[in-house]
Amino acid sequence: MRHLLDTKELTYEQAINILDTADYMAEVGTREVKKLPALRGRTVVNLFFEDSTRTRLSFEAAEKRLSADVINFAAKGSSVSKGESLKDTAQTLAAINADAVVVRHSASGAPQRLAEAGWIDVPVLNAGDGTHAHPTQALLDAMSLRQFKSQTTGKPTRGTDLKGMRVAIVGDVLHSRVARSNLWLLNTLGAEVIFVAPPTLLPVGIEDWPCEVYYNFDEALETHLDAVMLLRIQQERMHAAFFPSAEEYSRLWGLTPERFALLDQMDYETAVLHPGPMNRGLEISAVAADSDRSWVLRQVSNGVSVRMAVLYLLMTGGSAEDFYGN
Amino acid sequence: MRHLLDTKELTYEQAINILDTADYMAEVGTREVKKLPALRGRTVVNLFFEDSTRTRLSFEAAEKRLSADVINFAAKGSSVSKGESLKDTAQTLAAINADAVVVRHSASGAPQRLAEAGWIDVPVLNAGDGTHAHPTQALLDAMSLRQFKSQTTGKPTRGTDLKGMRVAIVGDVLHSRVARSNLWLLNTLGAEVIFVAPPTLLPVGIEDWPCEVYYNFDEALETHLDAVMLLRIQQERMHAAFFPSAEEYSRLWGLTPERFALLDQMDYETAVLHPGPMNRGLEISAVAADSDRSWVLRQVSNGVSVRMAVLYLLMTGGSAEDFYGN
Amino acid sequence: MRHLLDTKELTYEQAINILDTADYMAEVGTREVKKLPALRGRTVVNLFFEDSTRTRLSFEAAEKRLSADVINFAAKGSSVSKGESLKDTAQTLAAINADAVVVRHSASGAPQRLAEAGWIDVPVLNAGDGTHAHPTQALLDAMSLRQFKSQTTGKPTRGTDLKGMRVAIVGDVLHSRVARSNLWLLNTLGAEVIFVAPPTLLPVGIEDWPCEVYYNFDEALETHLDAVMLLRIQQERMHAAFFPSAEEYSRLWGLTPERFALLDQMDYETAVLHPGPMNRGLEISAVAADSDRSWVLRQVSNGVSVRMAVLYLLMTGGSAEDFYGN
Repeated sequence: MRHLLDTKELTYEQAINILDTADYMAEVGTREVKKLPALRGRTVVNLFFEDSTRTRLSFEAAEKRLSADVINFAAKGSSVSKGESLKDTAQTLAAINADAVVVRHSASGAPQRLAEAGWIDVPVLNAGDGTHAHPTQALLDAMSLRQFKSQTTGKPTRGTDLKGMRVAIVGDVLHSRVARSNLWLLNTLGAEVIFVAPPTLLPVGIEDWPCEVYYNFDEALETHLDAVMLLRIQQERMHAAFFPSAEEYSRLWGLTPERFALLDQMDYETAVLHPGPMNRGLEISAVAADSDRSWVLRQVSNGVSVRMAVLYLLMTGGSAEDFYGN
Repeated sequence: MRHLLDTKELTYEQAINILDTADYMAEVGTREVKKLPALRGRTVVNLFFEDSTRTRLSFEAAEKRLSADVINFAAKGSSVSKGESLKDTAQTLAAINADAVVVRHSASGAPQRLAEAGWIDVPVLNAGDGTHAHPTQALLDAMSLRQFKSQTTGKPTRGTDLKGMRVAIVGDVLHSRVARSNLWLLNTLGAEVIFVAPPTLLPVGIEDWPCEVYYNFDEALETHLDAVMLLRIQQERMHAAFFPSAEEYSRLWGLTPERFALLDQMDYETAVLHPGPMNRGLEISAVAADSDRSWVLRQVSNGVSVRMAVLYLLMTGGSAEDFYGN
Repeated sequence: MRHLLDTKELTYEQAINILDTADYMAEVGTREVKKLPALRGRTVVNLFFEDSTRTRLSFEAAEKRLSADVINFAAKGSSVSKGESLKDTAQTLAAINADAVVVRHSASGAPQRLAEAGWIDVPVLNAGDGTHAHPTQALLDAMSLRQFKSQTTGKPTRGTDLKGMRVAIVGDVLHSRVARSNLWLLNTLGAEVIFVAPPTLLPVGIEDWPCEVYYNFDEALETHLDAVMLLRIQQERMHAAFFPSAEEYSRLWGLTPERFALLDQMDYETAVLHPGPMNRGLEISAVAADSDRSWVLRQVSNGVSVRMAVLYLLMTGGSAEDFYGN
């Protein structure tokens, strides 16, 4: 594994290796000195062509906990955000001896181009590109689902996958890189993926994707879901012609107090996930967001561990065995 | 002491403990390697919902001198600056395992809410909230006044308070968190506080505050002041109906060259303080700002020491005795 | 050497000392742990009154590789970018115990004022001021030219100068601090400087500068140039009355594919330099930018080494002999 660009290309073994390493990194985060010296003397550049306070914060925390030197580069609005100059920017980062680049870009495919054009010869980590992929988000979701499975089965997380779990992903699948990255990773890890959305918010060709599709949230809820993941509504899309009104969206696709009460009556546990930041009252009700079933904060916490794991694996060439032995 | 939200709640012993610790931190700042390992592996987030280059700079320097990992989070203009999401932001910081949060907010009470709502379980340091409080500013002022007292009496600073000092605070008291935080802390430390301002720039109910009030700067100057603190004029308020013109303000409430000359004739020393950045020629004349009596730069320097002290005490649970013994 | 303000004031010995130190720093950049502990516990403030992602990035990387604590201070648009307050800003940095200040300012002379007004008593490094000077850029260019000379002669770089080299600097010399800083440094190091530009883009009084002037690029190309340095076109100047159109500029002053082909036919090597970021197709064609003769990326890489060298020398009082012995 040279880069982390997309979950589609991750093998089962690679995914398990990342998750096992992330478990160890979570343990580091509970120590008095929450640092590993693994990346001392290495420089990681966070190259953000698109705003993202939370993802940047999480990567920065991960990098510092691995003792890397961190340089933030907010390219939004600057000349480098335009066309040709992605190349010059990449070559500049290479020339200053950056040891890894975390890149977020509004254009789908930008991280791939950065990684594969030969402009720079260091690991590239995709922190979200257009509507294409957001692999560390899917990995933190998988880490959370694995912890949930471990809680319900009483078995340890390490080495296990998500076989037998049914995970519903609800909302604007059409524009969601989170939905896409989860689709591939959850399939790789053996889970069943259920997309729940109106036809206008599903991509063309979805019938060829490895997933079930429900146009009705309530019907989906009756199919024994182990987890419900609500997608974030992008406010800027809400006024587009194809988009339901806020009220309609909430009523049909939101985890309302009523739907959440329904989940509570089931004789099995269902985890509630959301990539954040939440629009409370829109795609998720406050009662669901703040309930015991909510994994939202554990997702954030797992985000740092997963990013530490990926940085460690890509930048040192190590594996989970470095921590657990064979 | 769990948080630093307001000087009003500081006990005498806590205040002296902070100032004594700050004295030690000032000494660290004179060493070849100006660092202590006290916060190695801990992450401090500077969460600034309101611009403040100087205060952020001072906190960042303090944090790095204690070997903390620092993450800056400028929330101004971002979605997190609105309503509900203070909660989500706080919980996110908790989830990424931040060990302390320094928060500045234009809304009075935001740091309190952050500290007390149970969203996050780490020390919260108020770096200025609305017109309410700016406790580290008051502490650095007190540290400066204690040094001044030590200079005039020839006695060491450590363990001493400000008993017997008369400190005038001049200008827009109505909108000043600096004035309020000084009021409480100076009273706790035994100093007398004199507010000097026009009635329109004094808060309703000031007759119940532990202070004297003068409407005339010249009269106040004749009451043996040990220190005169000029408040900064907020330019955006200067065009409000209740506000004097710049010329009138300077003439009536500014430390003009004439008033400064008067101070110079006294047979006692008077320290001149200003929280910065100064509007030279407005609330303070250049001759006063650049004179030997000016404590402005020592205030800035003391700001780093005081912030190191507070971070140390809150984050390690230590006390000044760690450095001085019993 | 107390500050680095301008290459005009650098002696031959100082320039060679910086370049020799930079050679060592380049070697550090190839190690597994690319760090020296030289500035541990020291704080460097990057005070940027003018945007410059690349220069800031390069300085920040250099500072971190020397183990300094780095505080970024983007003053653009803030109140400190106006008039008087340069003094207050400087004094604030002094008061928080900054150990060096890297300053970039749109006003020619600002770093000099900062260094010489007595407001602050630490090394000041000019990272570009108005149209006046950009000394670290000229030093990285000289480092690149010295490496080029070493390649063609087979002799080591250390201790050598640029005697015998002819270097053409092409374009908007009038507004270029890069051109000016190169002029002085290249002369000091024994190279011949040729300015190539239309009369409207040359400064008044250029006949008194130690350089040749050509108004015709093609004529200059026939005078055995060892290096051609293309100046960056500032887009904001391109619509001024005195400025050629983009098409005309490219045709007359650009390193077009045709001119580059001409260089390729010569029986000697010519290095192509550009301070970046490049306007491909304007002052430099893509074929020239991406060719083997292009030094653009090595310039960027040398930028970090040169900045490490200058920081090291100014902040520790050391010399190249610390690394090579006598």
